[in-house]
Amino acid sequence: MTNSLTLFSPSGVVLKAAPVRRAAKRLQKLGFEVSLDESALARFQRFAGDDDARLAALHRVAEAAPSVALATRGGYGLTRLLDRIDWPLLARSIERGTRWVGYSDVTALQLGLLAHTKAESWAGPLAIDDFGKETDDQLDEITPEVFREAMSGELEAVGFRTEAGFDGLEAKGVLWGGNLTVLSALLGTPHWPKVRGGILFLEDVNEHPYRVERLLLQLQQAGVLQAQKAILLGHFSDWKKSPLDRGYGLKQMVEAVRAVCVTPILTGLPFGHVPTKLCLPVGRKVQLVVDRRDVFVGWEHSHPHEHEHHPECGCEHAHGH
Amino acid sequence: MTNSLTLFSPSGVVLKAAPVRRAAKRLQKLGFEVSLDESALARFQRFAGDDDARLAALHRVAEAAPSVALATRGGYGLTRLLDRIDWPLLARSIERGTRWVGYSDVTALQLGLLAHTKAESWAGPLAIDDFGKETDDQLDEITPEVFREAMSGELEAVGFRTEAGFDGLEAKGVLWGGNLTVLSALLGTPHWPKVRGGILFLEDVNEHPYRVERLLLQLQQAGVLQAQKAILLGHFSDWKKSPLDRGYGLKQMVEAVRAVCVTPILTGLPFGHVPTKLCLPVGRKVQLVVDRRDVFVGWEHSHPHEHEHHPECGCEHAHGH
Repeated sequence: MTNSLTLFSPSGVVLKAAPVRRAAKRLQKLGFEVSLDESALARFQRFAGDDDARLAALHRVAEAAPSVALATRGGYGLTRLLDRIDWPLLARSIERGTRWVGYSDVTALQLGLLAHTKAESWAGPLAIDDFGKETDDQLDEITPEVFREAMSGELEAVGFRTEAGFDGLEAKGVLWGGNLTVLSALLGTPHWPKVRGGILFLEDVNEHPYRVERLLLQLQQAGVLQAQKAILLGHFSDWKKSPLDRGYGLKQMVEAVRAVCVTPILTGLPFGHVPTKLCLPVGRKVQLVVDRRDVFVGWEHSHPHEHEHHPECGCEHAHGH
Repeated sequence: MTNSLTLFSPSGVVLKAAPVRRAAKRLQKLGFEVSLDESALARFQRFAGDDDARLAALHRVAEAAPSVALATRGGYGLTRLLDRIDWPLLARSIERGTRWVGYSDVTALQLGLLAHTKAESWAGPLAIDDFGKETDDQLDEITPEVFREAMSGELEAVGFRTEAGFDGLEAKGVLWGGNLTVLSALLGTPHWPKVRGGILFLEDVNEHPYRVERLLLQLQQAGVLQAQKAILLGHFSDWKKSPLDRGYGLKQMVEAVRAVCVTPILTGLPFGHVPTKLCLPVGRKVQLVVDRRDVFVGWEHSHPHEHEHHPECGCEHAHGH
């Protein structure tokens, strides 16, 4: 059984090749047969190639259907492609076993896939951000191992600590979400996945809490938050305080949203523009259980490659839990 | 006929009273009887009073129905109030003759009004930004005079220069718009005005062109841009270049949006987070005419106070053109 992994660049330009090459080496050590799509180092303005080139890259990777399609980095660029992506082609690659992975701008791809085809993808690392550091000791201790487990099909649950007050909470629903700004920019478009009764996870970077609040209140006023069974907040990192804040910050923002939203909003999800990030199956039906302050999000193993198309591969880890 | 003007603070906290007092004096010199609503200098975290206080201020000003209701500043805050605003009460103040004025965060109020009641308001200056400077020579030469004309009912058209390529363009439709980020945050909510065949104006501040583009493409993908007869772009100011840009900037952004949008997109509108700003009647039916590079946006005088409810007031400027 191959364990092929293709690096591709659907969004922002990769300024230097070295981090991509370092990421490729580290991913090889992790057990993947790594190849670089020709898009990976392409350049056009602030994009990894012009729109046609990036669109072609997406479709080329989908046709090749590697085990893992991992984006090199985020930035901005997928929004431009959404109206032109061949979603069924991408969904067929997923039926053939491809796991599409990334976060940040890749949220647009993941949610578009969910909206158009209900196909599953993975919110998880990006090659440069999480595997491209100069030295090994700059790598996160958890992220690569969780990624390896998720890509092999071993990962069937993730856990984290949240605030007190949610002990006993249980919910089942479709897990979806990603970067809040990118997700919100799909609202009202054909690329918005109309998930009801889901479990929505969100993160963002460089956004002041009042900007996060504005988007969360938009989702609230649009009926999105109330339609979910739970909201999981990851990290909202790298925002700058202002003299205008006067005691307003992330905590006060979450309180303000909780005051108008009946859906439980849990903080503490290890996900976002931070070194330690879980892999989360976007579009998968999951079960959430809170025991005191411990949150478990579990799902049934259902890698379509193994179960639907090639049951004979009999990979042990698929049923090892 | 009184020319009363009330300063109120529906959004961000006013840290210092001095700019508000200077603005009040200058507005008095301009011919207004200025009063300060008790909200004007209220403080709660980064807001001008807590949500209940700011909501009460809006309703109090609406009940008093001054000739002009001018916000002190923008920032963030109206999003929190949208679900609780008594829109018919605000619309009644407008029927009684009140012109609600502001830009930036005030966009949420103006578009909510339009969505819920079709009532007209004015995109125009904010007290602190445009009348609160320390010395008179820091004031813009155009903004105060256009404001005075608009508030007196004299202003029946505005003009500006745009790029070549739109000579002969003519369009009639409802004028609407404001701050792009604030406007976009209404999409999908009950506060979104579903204007079709309109003339949409947009501005923003501190937003990199790729972020402006993402929101414009959201409006495009949501069918909003195509449903308009023209898009007028004001200033997109104070964004920081990045080493990642590689030749991508505002110009390239506009080109990218034009490539997918059939609606004419005209740049050069004097509006935004810049000193020189026009007053624009939000919700008013206007006529747009382009002669070579000169754009004219004109409307019929229709101050409801004078024409619908008190025709006997017979203010001369109303028919002076």
